[in-house]
Amino acid sequence: MDLPVLREALNSLLGDGGVTFSPHHNPDDLHDETLHPDPVEPFAVTYPRTTDDVAAIATLASHHQIPITPRGSGTGLSGGATPVKDGIVISFARMNEIRSIDQRDHVVVVQPGVTLRELDEALAPLGLRYPVYPGETSGSLGGNVNTNAGGMRAVRHGVTRQHVLGLELVLIDGTVMRVGGPVMKSSTGYDLTQLIVGSEGTLALVTEVTLRLAPRFEHTATVLVPFADLVDVTKIVPQIVASGLEPSILEYVDLLTMAAITQASNLELGVAPEVAARTSAYLVIVLETRTSSQLDNDLADLANLVESAGALDVYVLPGGAAARLIEARERVFWVAKAAGANEIIDVVVPRSQVPEFLDRARLLGDRYGAFVAGCGHVGDGNVHLSIYQNDDERRGAMLHELFATGIALGGQISGEHGIGRDKQAAFLSLIDPNVLALQRRLKDAFDPSGLLNPFRLLDDRTRP
Amino acid sequence: MDLPVLREALNSLLGDGGVTFSPHHNPDDLHDETLHPDPVEPFAVTYPRTTDDVAAIATLASHHQIPITPRGSGTGLSGGATPVKDGIVISFARMNEIRSIDQRDHVVVVQPGVTLRELDEALAPLGLRYPVYPGETSGSLGGNVNTNAGGMRAVRHGVTRQHVLGLELVLIDGTVMRVGGPVMKSSTGYDLTQLIVGSEGTLALVTEVTLRLAPRFEHTATVLVPFADLVDVTKIVPQIVASGLEPSILEYVDLLTMAAITQASNLELGVAPEVAARTSAYLVIVLETRTSSQLDNDLADLANLVESAGALDVYVLPGGAAARLIEARERVFWVAKAAGANEIIDVVVPRSQVPEFLDRARLLGDRYGAFVAGCGHVGDGNVHLSIYQNDDERRGAMLHELFATGIALGGQISGEHGIGRDKQAAFLSLIDPNVLALQRRLKDAFDPSGLLNPFRLLDDRTRP
Repeated sequence: MDLPVLREALNSLLGDGGVTFSPHHNPDDLHDETLHPDPVEPFAVTYPRTTDDVAAIATLASHHQIPITPRGSGTGLSGGATPVKDGIVISFARMNEIRSIDQRDHVVVVQPGVTLRELDEALAPLGLRYPVYPGETSGSLGGNVNTNAGGMRAVRHGVTRQHVLGLELVLIDGTVMRVGGPVMKSSTGYDLTQLIVGSEGTLALVTEVTLRLAPRFEHTATVLVPFADLVDVTKIVPQIVASGLEPSILEYVDLLTMAAITQASNLELGVAPEVAARTSAYLVIVLETRTSSQLDNDLADLANLVESAGALDVYVLPGGAAARLIEARERVFWVAKAAGANEIIDVVVPRSQVPEFLDRARLLGDRYGAFVAGCGHVGDGNVHLSIYQNDDERRGAMLHELFATGIALGGQISGEHGIGRDKQAAFLSLIDPNVLALQRRLKDAFDPSGLLNPFRLLDDRTRP
Repeated sequence: MDLPVLREALNSLLGDGGVTFSPHHNPDDLHDETLHPDPVEPFAVTYPRTTDDVAAIATLASHHQIPITPRGSGTGLSGGATPVKDGIVISFARMNEIRSIDQRDHVVVVQPGVTLRELDEALAPLGLRYPVYPGETSGSLGGNVNTNAGGMRAVRHGVTRQHVLGLELVLIDGTVMRVGGPVMKSSTGYDLTQLIVGSEGTLALVTEVTLRLAPRFEHTATVLVPFADLVDVTKIVPQIVASGLEPSILEYVDLLTMAAITQASNLELGVAPEVAARTSAYLVIVLETRTSSQLDNDLADLANLVESAGALDVYVLPGGAAARLIEARERVFWVAKAAGANEIIDVVVPRSQVPEFLDRARLLGDRYGAFVAGCGHVGDGNVHLSIYQNDDERRGAMLHELFATGIALGGQISGEHGIGRDKQAAFLSLIDPNVLALQRRLKDAFDPSGLLNPFRLLDDRTRP
């Protein structure tokens, strides 16, 4: 590699404000929200404005054989967007235009740097919604695509994967292509769109995203249901799903997590003291309907259902408290981080296996002297646990057992955060070697030199 | 290749009833439902019972470098499962076991030979449903996975892709692997499951499918809405989708197609003669709800909506007539075939573009002297047209223009039938060469010798 030549080329391509060089980077662009940031100085951080800029950067990186780390807004939790020493970061912060919103087709086209919040603000006045709702609304859609972000509304609406209709991609050699498009279905060749979703920036650079939207329902209610036992919470979930009530949110929050998030948000939920004293976990359910009469009927049926399953009480929260509870639930990661959590996991299991997984997690916590608290998208079996154990070796051993337990119950290591760097060791040791070999052949088909987001996911080369 | 050795090996592996050799094949296993069957005699047709059988056949085929054509129940419409001369057909007819139904997780595991009808019969008593509903219930789930089958309920429930959670695969070298699993979401490596869905048997052999189920709603109504103009039918569709009524079926049927299918099914829909005289197209809408009161409310709102958009009348069909109309709609392919249709297409476009696409199709029909009639899953922009023009050259030129028109409107060549052989020429000439090259690299990563379902989709080698 010839760094002075590359520097000159990047300067000339991107101009003022378009690129920084080590050591003059904005520190915000050198990490994501992993609990193990391990920061390094990349050679350059680039801020392209157009797809052509991205293609030119890729061509330069290929020519000089320099690795690229793509980053959205840096809200990832698994070290998927942490820079590589002497590499090029591509920040999509300036590619943040909403290109078009089609109200008849319910399709939006965005550049990857558009955030969930910006998109929602544009859609709300139109009665439309992008229903995927990961906790952090400052997350960018490019990042969401690359991690296949999920979140609280997946139980009804599905995850990012189910909403990405098409992509514009830049390959590592600078080739620009479009895959998929603004149609609801297709059987026209291999689905490259779906292959890119969740590939953590290791296959191609996403420069435009075509997304499916949904109508925004006006009538909504948030229901808080305390239970005496966490197992009761998780056991009622399959019944709620089977009922056809189609809640848009179905979360469990354990007692400690609820105490922490309500305290952090200074939120009073109005649970009667004698009920609170007997509660060990909460279910949070959001219903959204087309009409108010349907909402009333659904609420009544839901209340009957949870009461017959041992709920201690049923609270329909007033609008303000409801919004603040969902916001507080969104902030659980930050609360755990502030409390000193050493690891965050998001194992996904079949929803019927959540009680068993939580039991085993508790036993593992006891065995390894770790404190475990959590919440989760229990409607789709996605369990979020904060692990508090400072000792790296003990924590590592416990995590390996936790992931293996999830897999043994029919699950997967990550439901929505991705593998990145933080879960790479577990991923590589627990995946079927034949599946790993096949995934590596696919990686080679896109990026034979291994320049795109190296040293994470499949790539076990030693970092320089 | 050493055919006597291979014959002996297949006989020994599969035993009596497990394999036939040319010229003693069951003719039913030598074609799918393409209108252009071009039958050839494969060397062997195999009927494995187990995944191990399939792996052994793949290993033999690899060793002898003999192509494999996988087939489900042969209901495909694009020549995707037509045998190759001197090749091996793998019929999954005897791998037809429903392995497990999990009522708490709403997950079913099936062998690929299970048909949609068999699955529905097993699920109905449990209050569950596999909601994907392609026209032909004798279709097998393995075939559905490989074409990413869609059908009438896609507007609400999505297509096969959105329901396949995991697969067991046999690679061409005999390797057996599981990808995905019984979880609702995952961000754990590349999604090989989604890559296989819709790959038309060209990447791997599917030997087991894990599918997501849905609750079965009891309350349902079928609404028939005549319009004076086809364009009015298609213009109301985006409003119905935006309304949040979430119809499970939203079909248009043009006048000629409706006349043909009702006559073929001896079905009287009760449309008043003075209305029928003014009708040129119908919208068929099915609502399914959790409660009867919701159904009543939704029906009233739907009637208001379509009446304000110029409907000539609104008929809520009695149960028997409703079921028979949907069945008749399912049979439209057979009616068109019996009427001498020369081609069936299923272009998908953004739903707002359906009127424009139909206009242009009519003009193309006029220009090429072709008769064009149709219906379609208009809620998701998937237009099914029967083309009547005996002259191969004129029909070919018209089809090319029709597909190019669909793509120009933001669409794709096939919404659900797949490319197979019938649409290969159009696919290869209209696809971006860079996308084609990338797809071919993926094919190589799975099947470097090109043995799996050759001479269709990407594979433009000349057939022997």
